[in-house]
Formats: sequence, C-alpha cells, structure tokens
Amino acid sequence: MSTACAQYILAVNSGSSSLKFGLYQKDNLLMALHGSVKPNSSDENHFIVQDHHNEFLANHPLAHSGVLPGIKELISWLHGQRTRYPISAIAHRLVQGGPNHREPEIITPQLLKQIHQFTYLAPNHIPIALEVIKAFQAGFPDAVQVACFDTYFHKDMPAYAKHYPLPAKYQEQGLQRYGFHGLSYEYIMGKLITKSPGVLKKKVVIAHLGNGASMVAIKNGRSVDTTMGLSPMGGLVMGTRSGDLDPGVLLFLLNKGKLSTKELDDLLSRDSGLKAIAGYSDMETLVLNQARDQKAAEAITTFCYQIKRSIGALAAAMGGLDILVFTGGIGENSAVIREYICQDMAFLGIRINKRLNNKGHRIISKKNSTVTVRVMATDEAAVMAKHTQTLISKSFIS
Amino acid sequence: MSTACAQYILAVNSGSSSLKFGLYQKDNLLMALHGSVKPNSSDENHFIVQDHHNEFLANHPLAHSGVLPGIKELISWLHGQRTRYPISAIAHRLVQGGPNHREPEIITPQLLKQIHQFTYLAPNHIPIALEVIKAFQAGFPDAVQVACFDTYFHKDMPAYAKHYPLPAKYQEQGLQRYGFHGLSYEYIMGKLITKSPGVLKKKVVIAHLGNGASMVAIKNGRSVDTTMGLSPMGGLVMGTRSGDLDPGVLLFLLNKGKLSTKELDDLLSRDSGLKAIAGYSDMETLVLNQARDQKAAEAITTFCYQIKRSIGALAAAMGGLDILVFTGGIGENSAVIREYICQDMAFLGIRINKRLNNKGHRIISKKNSTVTVRVMATDEAAVMAKHTQTLISKSFIS
Repeated sequence: MSTACAQYILAVNSGSSSLKFGLYQKDNLLMALHGSVKPNSSDENHFIVQDHHNEFLANHPLAHSGVLPGIKELISWLHGQRTRYPISAIAHRLVQGGPNHREPEIITPQLLKQIHQFTYLAPNHIPIALEVIKAFQAGFPDAVQVACFDTYFHKDMPAYAKHYPLPAKYQEQGLQRYGFHGLSYEYIMGKLITKSPGVLKKKVVIAHLGNGASMVAIKNGRSVDTTMGLSPMGGLVMGTRSGDLDPGVLLFLLNKGKLSTKELDDLLSRDSGLKAIAGYSDMETLVLNQARDQKAAEAITTFCYQIKRSIGALAAAMGGLDILVFTGGIGENSAVIREYICQDMAFLGIRINKRLNNKGHRIISKKNSTVTVRVMATDEAAVMAKHTQTLISKSFIS
Repeated sequence: MSTACAQYILAVNSGSSSLKFGLYQKDNLLMALHGSVKPNSSDENHFIVQDHHNEFLANHPLAHSGVLPGIKELISWLHGQRTRYPISAIAHRLVQGGPNHREPEIITPQLLKQIHQFTYLAPNHIPIALEVIKAFQAGFPDAVQVACFDTYFHKDMPAYAKHYPLPAKYQEQGLQRYGFHGLSYEYIMGKLITKSPGVLKKKVVIAHLGNGASMVAIKNGRSVDTTMGLSPMGGLVMGTRSGDLDPGVLLFLLNKGKLSTKELDDLLSRDSGLKAIAGYSDMETLVLNQARDQKAAEAITTFCYQIKRSIGALAAAMGGLDILVFTGGIGENSAVIREYICQDMAFLGIRINKRLNNKGHRIISKKNSTVTVRVMATDEAAVMAKHTQTLISKSFIS
C-alpha cells in the first residue's frame, strides 16, 4: 500500500460556509496543526493554520468566498508542507450516509454512489460534502479517505425514539430519526468515561449548543433519544433554523404564505430561529445587546426556554438525570446562557454555582446539586482522527 | 328581546365526523338532556338522546352519514320537544377564531365573516363549524348563538411559548401558538379550584388524552405552555395525526414523496400517528391487542413515551410539578395507559398506586408521591353553557 510510510491524518470538518481541520500524527494522534477557512469580521473568506502551540503558520484573507476555494488553498498549503507533514489518510465529517451507513467507513467509489443516492435526506449538505471529498481525492490521490457520519452515535436508539409515526413505506425510503452531532457526543462521552468509567451506568444529557444545536439523552452509555431527527433543521430553535414545528405551520406557509418547497426550505434553514426573532443570530452579539435590545432578549429567552424544556423531556426519556454537559461554541463559552438554562431547575436536582459558572470552571454545579453540571470543550476532529487510525490499522491487518 | 322567556341552553360540540350536545337549564345550568351523533359499531351514523338519568329518549341509526344530517335530525327532534324544552341560546365550540377572537362571544354576521377570513388557520375545521352554526341559525332563528373558542384558555401564554421562531410578517397573518382543548382545561381547572382554591398557586399539568390529545402547563392558574400550537395536528402523537415534526420530514414528503400540499395535509391529519404504526388508532382496541400484536404495542409505547417526555418538558416550563391530571376518553378510561405514562417518573415525584389506578379512583398517586395524580371527567359542554349564561345575562344588562 503506497500510504504505508505516511505519518499524518487530516480530519476535515466542512459545513456550508466554513471549514475546520486538524492534522494528527498517525501513531499517537497528537495534534500537529489545526486551522479553518471561514468568513472574518469583514466578511472576507479567511484562511488560518496554527501549530500545536497556536502559533500562526498562515493567516490571510482569500480572494474568493465559499468552502471550495478555501479547500483549494488548504490543499495547496499542505502540498507545500508535504515533506514535513506527509498525509496518509483524510477523514471527512458527513452529516448523513443514509440508513445503512452509520459507522466510520473507508470511502470507495461505491460508497460515494450510495451516499449520493441519499442526497434527498440532506439536500443542503450531501452535495457539497461530496464535492469536498472529490477535491481532497484529487489533491491527495494516494491518501485513504474516510467518512465519519454524524448519525453513528445514535444508531441504536430504541424504536419509539427512532421512528416517526408515519406510514412504514417512508421508513423504507430512509425516513427515520437519525440524530446528529454524534462525533461531538462521542468525544464528550469518551472524556467522561476516561474521568470515571461509572458514567456508563449514569443518565447523561449533553447539550451541544452552537449555531446548530442539539441535545442527547445517554443512558447506560447508549444514545436513547436526541432532539434532532431526520435533518439538521429539527429539534431545538437554532441560529437560523426553526427546530421542530407543528406540521400545520408548514401547511400555513405553503397555502397562505404561497411559498414554494424551495422557499420553505430556505426560510426554515436560513431565515428562522434566533435570526427571525432578533434580526441576527450570533449569540455573543445577542447577549451583548440583550439589555438594550428587547428582540435580542426575546431570542435568548426562547433559546434557553426550549433547552430547559428539552432537559425535562430527555430526563423523562431516561427516568432521571445524573450529569448535564454543556458543550459547543455557545455551551462552552456563554456563562449567561448556561445560567438562564439552569434557572429554576432545582426540581430536577440542577443547582449551579454562579461564581464557578462565571469563571468557566469545568464543574459548575453546587455540592448539593444531585445533577453534576459540566462545561466541556468538544473536538470532533480528534474523534474522526481516532476512527481513521482504527480503520487504517484494520485495513492493514486484513 | 324575543328570547327573554326561554329557559334552556343547548351546547353543541361538533367535530368533522361526530357531534355531542348537552341541554342545560338556563338559570341553574343543570343538565336536562345530552346526546350524540356518531358512527356506531356497524359504521352507521347513530343518533342518541338521553335524559339526566341516562334514559334513552332517542336511539336509532340515521340514513345518511356525516355531521350535517345528524344536525338536521337533532334540530327536528328538539323542535318536537320545544314546548318542554324551549331553547333560548345555543353555544358552539369552535377550534379557532383567529388572533382577535379568543373569549366567548355572541355570534353576529360580522363575527362569522371574521372567522371565515381565518379559515386558512384551520382549513379542516372552520368551514364545517360555520355550516353547523348556519344550520342551527336556520333551525332556531330566535335563539342567541354563542361561539366558544378552544383557544381562549391559552390567550395569556408568555411570548416565548406563544410565538414561533419565524419572521414577524407571519405573526401578522395570525401565525402563533394558540393551543387547543381550552374548554376542557377550563372545566378541569374550575373543578380543581372548587376542591381547593390553593391550586391557583400550584404547578399543574393536565393531559387531555383522546383521539385528539394535548397537554397544558398551568402555573398560578394561567396556561403557560401547551403541546398543541397553531393547529390540532401539532404536539403529541395522536390517533391519526403525527404531532410536531422536524420540518425536514415535510420537505422529504414533498420532495421525495412527491405529495401535493393537500395530500400532505391528509397524510398528517388522517393517516399518521397510531394508525400509521399499528394500522388502526382506537386505543381500547390497541390495548386489547397489545400482547399479541407487536405493532399495537409499539403504537402504545410511542404514545406513552411522548406523553412522558411532555410531562418532563412542561414541568421544566414551570420549574416543577405539583398536580398531574388525566382526562379525555383515554386519560379517564385507560388505567394501563396511565400506568405506562407514570412508570419511572419518580424522579419528578410521580408515584402511582397501581391498585387505585386500576380501580379508577379519583386520586391514584401514593401518599409519598410529591405530585398528586388525579383522574377526572371533563365536560366541555358544561363550560360552554356557563359562558353562554354569562354572556346572555350581560347582554340583558347592557
């Protein structure tokens, strides 16, 4: 195998308008480099690479916006470093691989064809993900490419949480509650187990709160329910997405609002959620403005309220709650959002210490809180690198 | 006013395929008669009238199916009794009156016009409700007709529970979370207050579980959230309705399933829910079959699971729970459904006594249950009669 002497694994996490990556030593999974392509404050596409000391190795705007020009720049930059950082495998995060592709898998032409056939399950995500893979295949023709699906962590949800109450013929077309943010949940659970293997007998809720947001209920180490279902539009209210809705609302928008299916998709993916309430969706800005901007305050209240409700619902799904974890951009960084969410939740045993919360401690619950409340950083790329390392070593053995 | 000497109030609760009514003495609101028009076990339209001792005064099938032929029969029957039971007012239950009509109101041509303008908010309910009103206006031209809206009880929900995270222009068109089953909730709360005025300081969840089902959170006497929103399709999974969904599911059904908007409405109103899981939706039959019919067992599990989740969510909406009430056809009559729902809910303080539950006691919680769990009969017609009595006396004063 031509990749036998290579020594690094690249983990690529690309969304519709941004990309993050990490470069890991193949043998010990230590991170060597990490970086991103995303819009900067002037809304230019910006390219960043940092080493493991967070020293900048690249830090400049790009002439073209979008993920694909960013990938071109990243590939070209990595080619310039190929003697120092030879890449033997590239891991790609994929939102969705259909009902039969949940576990991490080496990408073959057949797999790409099968994923392509399920484009209708995630029409806003799969096409661009396939283009990203193609670009890296062209840039690194000798590297093993691996697909890591966000749905993997939830693959064993019980039937009553997995299926929609809709005719069975749609299940055969792949309609089910897949759940997402699985790589993040897997990372967090891995860390919790390392701290204390006893967590495998506990009832855990992880709130992955970012621009996209979901929550999972994990009982005895297994995902038993999660707020997102078929698509990343469902569950909680999010930055620009509505979350779950009464179907009558969509019928209203189609009949009275005269929206086309495409317009409905755009509205509920890009112009709903916090943005529809406040006019903008960035949580840091909303929090800064909440005292003088009533709409910002309303958006924050709605967001926190839905998360409170989901904590209650997921606790009921498990028959109780032992550990609550906040992660994701908002969950990790916004003390005020965590405080609002945990207010008046003592009936569930959630009592946080405001001082510890404001200081960003790892455990923010009080001593008398029966629920341990933690704040944790997530690292999807690290999980992807780990899965890739395992898959490569297996493919050597076989 | 020509109705001054009349002495009875008729309360009419008509749905899409059945109708119930009660006849009340205007002065003391004692029920004189009650009855229904609904399909019998041979699927014929069947007409029943009983007196207050439940003696049958009419009990025969009708030649034609549907609500309107039933109404014709009822009007004709009541005309035959007009000397004994002169009717001065008729109350109609209406699912929806738009954002500006929530309180019970005397029906005027203008009100009918305004309700008609909001047909798009409840296209499966408003047209037939208006036809029913017209039929009674023609049959009883001298009676005052009153509209009682199911949305009244929820009119003061806080903004974060009332509004969808969608652009404000749709709010102006009447898009909001109205909530339903308000007359039932009002009846139950009235009864609870009579038993103990202290309930006005408690946290109450009422589960109105019938073929249509919803739940409400009542804090300090006020509805603060409910599972149904814009339409009776939302919230919990129901007999033939899906309940809330990931918007991506509807986009899937439109794009991949190639459904028209009309077909989507029919599917999610009539062919989803328990019926989609088990092939039929009648809860009594499902419970009878659950041991030998795995699909029936799955439907029951899904139903109870969603209700458990909603109890958790609504408790979180209030910061705790003091009283849980089961009502509606299923809530009142199915001990096994109540038992499944209350299983593993001790973390919320819900502990039921199986013996009391099976015997159909009014209070089924154990002594050490911090949540009092009650089983109560609801009576929407009685609330409608009461509102009508109040409105008539007001209209005399003015």
